[in-house]
Amino acid sequence: MSIVFNAIGSIERDPGEQATPRHHTLSDVEGWLNLLPEYEAGLSDITPGQRIVVLFHFDRSPPFTPELLRQTPPHRDAPLGVFSICSPRRPNAIGMSIVEVLEVDGCRIRVKGLDTLDGTPILDIKPYFPFEDGQRH
Amino acid sequence: MSIVFNAIGSIERDPGEQATPRHHTLSDVEGWLNLLPEYEAGLSDITPGQRIVVLFHFDRSPPFTPELLRQTPPHRDAPLGVFSICSPRRPNAIGMSIVEVLEVDGCRIRVKGLDTLDGTPILDIKPYFPFEDGQRH
Repeated sequence: MSIVFNAIGSIERDPGEQATPRHHTLSDVEGWLNLLPEYEAGLSDITPGQRIVVLFHFDRSPPFTPELLRQTPPHRDAPLGVFSICSPRRPNAIGMSIVEVLEVDGCRIRVKGLDTLDGTPILDIKPYFPFEDGQRH
Repeated sequence: MSIVFNAIGSIERDPGEQATPRHHTLSDVEGWLNLLPEYEAGLSDITPGQRIVVLFHFDRSPPFTPELLRQTPPHRDAPLGVFSICSPRRPNAIGMSIVEVLEVDGCRIRVKGLDTLDGTPILDIKPYFPFEDGQRH
């Protein structure tokens, strides 16, 4: 059963950046989440300093094929199941990054911690709730 | 531009459970992530005790409309921007839960911490990397 979404905006990386970090936990890359103007009101409670979850579309990934169910990530020496890694080549090409908010300017959010390509379509933004000691699981 | 995904499986909550917790960080609900058999090899490195991210489709949510850009969550007394809350009524009806793995059995994963309805379509499973003190951001 097909599930259809539409991009709510796109990611703009600062020009001049070189390599794409392999993971958002290792990234200091800054840029903008540019939302379509119609979604600006939805950003009203996002504030500098907080972390947010960005879901995006790996729009330049080749199609998924069964031999990609196990892949060897660049920093590993043995294959891992696709659901244990963050590879862009996955059954549904959805990526997730947790980034730090630096500024909110209208329908744009300046963030730090990007690990995506410039122009990547944004699917959703969610609050980030870390698990802490004492939570129920 | 439309982006099309397909469910890779569905969530099976244990029968007899009553209310759906409002958030996965508050949930002790157990159940199964039932993947389609073709994806079983992708689960090979998921182990009991770890936490995983589950992305799913809020398949029973009504369509998003502009008045939902700000919503008052059940436990709050004022509206918040949709990108600061986990409401199922959002521009793209994608949900995210972080659950604890109890068991992996073929193409099924038994988990604890569900906050979804029974039968919810699964879009993706990803490893969960908490931020820790000393990480670069």
